[in-house]
Amino acid sequence: MIRGNLVNPFTEEIYPAEIEIRDGMIECVRQIEGSFNQYILPGFIDAHIHIESSMLAPSRFAEVVVPHGTTCVVSDPHEIANVMGIRGIKYMIEDASTVPLNVFFTAPSCVPATPFETSGAVISSKEIDKLLKCGEMVALGEMMNFPGVLSDDPEVMAKIAAAKVNKKPVDGHAPLLSGNDLCKYIAAGISTDHECTLKEEVIEKRKLGMKVMLRQGSSAKNLADLIGAGGDFIISDDKHPEDLLNGHVDLMLKEAVELGEDPIKALKMVTINPAAHYDLNNGLIAPGKPADIVIVEDLKSFKVKEVYINGNIAAREGKALFSVNPLELESTFKISFKKPVDFDILSSKKEENVRVINVIAGQLLTEESEAVLPVADGKIEPDVENDILKIAVLERYGHNKMANAFVHGFGLKNGAIASSVAHDSHNIIAVGTNSQDISDAVNKLVENNGGLVVAFNGDISSLKLPIGGLMSTKTAEEVALDLEVLHNCLVDMGCKLHSPFMTMSFLALLVIPKLKISDMGLFDVEKFDFVDVIK
Amino acid sequence: MIRGNLVNPFTEEIYPAEIEIRDGMIECVRQIEGSFNQYILPGFIDAHIHIESSMLAPSRFAEVVVPHGTTCVVSDPHEIANVMGIRGIKYMIEDASTVPLNVFFTAPSCVPATPFETSGAVISSKEIDKLLKCGEMVALGEMMNFPGVLSDDPEVMAKIAAAKVNKKPVDGHAPLLSGNDLCKYIAAGISTDHECTLKEEVIEKRKLGMKVMLRQGSSAKNLADLIGAGGDFIISDDKHPEDLLNGHVDLMLKEAVELGEDPIKALKMVTINPAAHYDLNNGLIAPGKPADIVIVEDLKSFKVKEVYINGNIAAREGKALFSVNPLELESTFKISFKKPVDFDILSSKKEENVRVINVIAGQLLTEESEAVLPVADGKIEPDVENDILKIAVLERYGHNKMANAFVHGFGLKNGAIASSVAHDSHNIIAVGTNSQDISDAVNKLVENNGGLVVAFNGDISSLKLPIGGLMSTKTAEEVALDLEVLHNCLVDMGCKLHSPFMTMSFLALLVIPKLKISDMGLFDVEKFDFVDVIK
Repeated sequence: MIRGNLVNPFTEEIYPAEIEIRDGMIECVRQIEGSFNQYILPGFIDAHIHIESSMLAPSRFAEVVVPHGTTCVVSDPHEIANVMGIRGIKYMIEDASTVPLNVFFTAPSCVPATPFETSGAVISSKEIDKLLKCGEMVALGEMMNFPGVLSDDPEVMAKIAAAKVNKKPVDGHAPLLSGNDLCKYIAAGISTDHECTLKEEVIEKRKLGMKVMLRQGSSAKNLADLIGAGGDFIISDDKHPEDLLNGHVDLMLKEAVELGEDPIKALKMVTINPAAHYDLNNGLIAPGKPADIVIVEDLKSFKVKEVYINGNIAAREGKALFSVNPLELESTFKISFKKPVDFDILSSKKEENVRVINVIAGQLLTEESEAVLPVADGKIEPDVENDILKIAVLERYGHNKMANAFVHGFGLKNGAIASSVAHDSHNIIAVGTNSQDISDAVNKLVENNGGLVVAFNGDISSLKLPIGGLMSTKTAEEVALDLEVLHNCLVDMGCKLHSPFMTMSFLALLVIPKLKISDMGLFDVEKFDFVDVIK
Repeated sequence: MIRGNLVNPFTEEIYPAEIEIRDGMIECVRQIEGSFNQYILPGFIDAHIHIESSMLAPSRFAEVVVPHGTTCVVSDPHEIANVMGIRGIKYMIEDASTVPLNVFFTAPSCVPATPFETSGAVISSKEIDKLLKCGEMVALGEMMNFPGVLSDDPEVMAKIAAAKVNKKPVDGHAPLLSGNDLCKYIAAGISTDHECTLKEEVIEKRKLGMKVMLRQGSSAKNLADLIGAGGDFIISDDKHPEDLLNGHVDLMLKEAVELGEDPIKALKMVTINPAAHYDLNNGLIAPGKPADIVIVEDLKSFKVKEVYINGNIAAREGKALFSVNPLELESTFKISFKKPVDFDILSSKKEENVRVINVIAGQLLTEESEAVLPVADGKIEPDVENDILKIAVLERYGHNKMANAFVHGFGLKNGAIASSVAHDSHNIIAVGTNSQDISDAVNKLVENNGGLVVAFNGDISSLKLPIGGLMSTKTAEEVALDLEVLHNCLVDMGCKLHSPFMTMSFLALLVIPKLKISDMGLFDVEKFDFVDVIK
C-alpha cells in the first residue's frame, strides 16, 4: 500500500490517495483523508531516446535512470542496428530484459542512413515487418529519410506500409519541414516529430495533427525555445553518461516547470500522453496497470525518493536496488591493424591545395575551407600550428575501406584521438597531428573492440566500448570517470573543443551540411556527392 | 478545395484555412488570409450507438444521420446479434457498406444477456475472437455483465482476453459501479463507460483512467446532469427514428454548448477523442486522412450546410446525396400462428390472486403488485377497468416456448399491441385487454416478419420491421409516420403511456428490477429467479 498526494494526470488533480498493489499490479486507487509530505506520480516515460548515446549497455542505462524516476523508455536502436542489424537489436532487447526498467523499442527505419557510407548492416522493409511483429517494438523508428518520403521511395514506403499493417505508429524526424512538403510527410502516415527548434514549427506540426516531442537531451536542449507553443511529450533523444548521473526525466520535469510549464501538464507529457500514443500499459496509475510509481518530494525539484516498478521497490534515494549484470556481445570489428603510412595522403608535388572540414564548436554543421599544405617525403603534411589536422574514417565491417582528409577546429597540438562512435555507420573515425599517433589510437581501439582512445607518443588512454563499439558494460559513474580522464588528456594536448569526441562523431554524418567524411571519401553534403581532398 | 473558418480540435483554434483534397483524401491543410461565414469541422463521430434502436437498416440510418454531420459511428450490434448472431452482424456490415457513412462495430459481449430467456443466438468467446479480427470491429462491445466480471466468470474473462490479444479496447457498461468493484471492473481491462447519471460517477471513473461517454440519446439524456464533470466523448446510445429527423451529433453539440460547454471542447468529444480511442482514421482534418468534413453555419446552432465523406459531397442542406437501397434479410421467425386460447391462463378456482408487473412511466424499473382476478370459463380474466391487462412473451426462434402474465400501467381500454422489439432476446411481447386481440396482433406480427402491431376487434395497424424483427428498410420519415399512426391508435384505445412500445420492449429485460417476463416465465430480478403468476 502506497499513500501520499496523488498527482493524477487523467483529471489534472492532486489529492491524498492510497494505492493498493497485488502481484505487481495496481488493484485499487482510493481517495483518502490525510496530510502527506510526499507526492505519488506515475512512473516516467522517456518516449524517444537512443540508449546507445549513453554509452551504456541497456542494463547499465537502467541502473542510472531508474533512480531518476524513469520506469519506461521507448528506445530507437538505430546506432547498434547500423553496426550489427537485427543481432544488435536483439542484444538490446535481451540485455534490457535483465533489469526492471520497461524498455520498448522502435524498428530503425534508416539503416543504413545513406548509400555513401559502409554500414555494418542493412535493414530491409521485410525485416522491418518482422521486427514490428515483436511485442517489444512499439513503432517504426524516426523516419529521417524525408527526401525518400517526399519522392515516394519504394523501400521507404514499404517500411511505412509495414507499420500500418502491424498497426504501429511511425515516428518522424523532420527538422524545419513545412508547408506542402510537411503535409506530404504527414500524409504518408508519420505522426510524431522531435526535431522542432522553433515555436512556429511546433505550432504548424501540431495544427496538422502531429504529436510534437519537445527535446531536452544532452546535445539538443529545445525546451526553453519551445515551451508555451504546445507539445505532447518531453523526450531526451540523447543523454550522455555524465549527464544521466545528474538526472533524466526528473530533470526534464524540473526544467519544464522552471520554464513556466504547469507541473501536471508536464507530467502528462511523460506519462499518459506517450502511454496513449504507443499503446503502453506504463505511466498510468489505474487499476489493472503495472504498479510503476514514483515518489517525489515536491513538484518543483521533482527530487525522487522512491521508485517502484511492477510493484517492487526499484530505487531509493538515488540508488538502484536491483542487480545489474550486462550481457556480453561478440566483437564487431573486422579490421586489421594499421600502420602510420595508411594515414598518409601522397603527392608528387611540393605543396597541395586541399579541402578542409571546418568544425564549428557546438554545432553539427561544418563549413568547407581550403589550405595550402606542404609535402614532405611524398606525403601531404598537416599544419598543426594553424590547426589543420589529419582526419580518417576506417570501415570496420570487413571491407577494408578507408579515407583520409584534413580538418580544422580541434586545436590539438600533438597526439591523436580515435573513436568507434561515428554516426550513423559507426566506422572508426580518428583525428590527429601525425600518422603515428593516429595509427596507435586506431590500433588500440581495434584491440579494445571499440571505444574512445587518446594517443600521444606511445602513451595511450582509452574507454572501452565493447558492445558494438558503442556501449560499455561498466557503470555510468565509471564511464563518466573514464571520459573525464580522456577529456583532461585532450585539454593538456591543446584541444579547444568542449566535447571533442562528440564533435568528431558527427563528422561522418553525411546528412548535415557541409563537408563531411565517410569511409568512402570526403563528402559534400550540398552537392550530395564525393569530392577530392586535393582541389 | 474547401475554404472556411477551420475549427481545429488538435490545437483548439479557429482560423481561416483551405483544405486540398485528392482522391478522397486530405492532401494539405493551409492557413490562409480571408473572411468566411462558414465553419469547417471534422466529420462527427457517434462513438456508441445501437443502430437497431433507430428501427432503420444501417443504410437508412446513414441516410438520416449524414445530413446531420455524422460521418462515422461506432455501433454495437447487440440487438441483431441476439436475434441472428454472426449472420445478423454480417448483415449490418454489408448493408452499411452500401452507403458512404463510416460504420464501425463492436463485438457484442453479452449474447445472450441472461440464461433466463431464449435468444436467437449465442456468441461465444471463440466467436468474439474471430469477430475481433475483422477490420470493422474496433472494440469488444459494452460489457453489461459486470457481475460476471466481478466474479471472474471464465467465459466473460475469455472474451476480454480475446480483445487484449487482438489489441482492441473493451467498452464498459457499469451504472453506479463504484469503489473496489469499479476498480476490479477497470482492472479487468474495461476502459469506457456510458452509463453515468451522476457527476460523482463521472469524476470517480475518470480519476481511475476510464474514458467517460456522456450520453444524450432518445431515451437517456444525461448531458445536463453531467456537463462540467469532465467527459471524453458525447454519444447517443439509442436514437429513435422521429428524433433522428431532428438531429444527431449536430444536436448533441448544440445542446452541449447551450449547457455551457466550450464548442471546441465539445467538438473534440465527437472527433479526435473517439478517433484516438478506437484508432480510427475518421474525425480528423489532417493530411493523409479521408476527407470527412462538415460545414456548419455557426458554433451555436451547429446547423449543417454540407457534409463530405471521402472527399465526396454526401449531404447538403439536410438532404443525403447518395442512393440508398437497403439489403434484404431472410426472416428470423420460426413460430406458428397462435390461437386466442394460447394466451389464457387456466384455473379451476373462481378467482385467483396473481402477481402483476407494475409499469412506471418513463422508467426501465418496474414494481410488483398483486391483484385478485375473476375466473370465467376456467380462464383468469384481466381487469381492464383497473388497468390490469394480459401480457405475453412468445419465443420466436423455433423452440415454441411462451409465458403469460398480467401487467398494470398501460391503460388500454380495448385491443392489444405486439412487438418483436423486446430487449435483449427480442422475442415477441404483447399486451392486451383480451386473448382474441392479442392473438390477432401476434399473428399479424408473424405474418409481417416482425415489427409493431396494434389490433382492435379485427382492425389492425402495423409497422413492418422485417430486418431481424428490429429494423425497417423504409426511410426514417416513413417509419416515423408509421409510428405516429400506431401511437395515435393507442391514444384512441386509452393508452396512458408516452411510448408504450418502448416501455413494453423493456418488460422482457431481465437485468433491471423488479418484476419482468421472458419466454420462460415471470421473473423476479431481485431474487434472480422465476416466480409463479398465481401467488
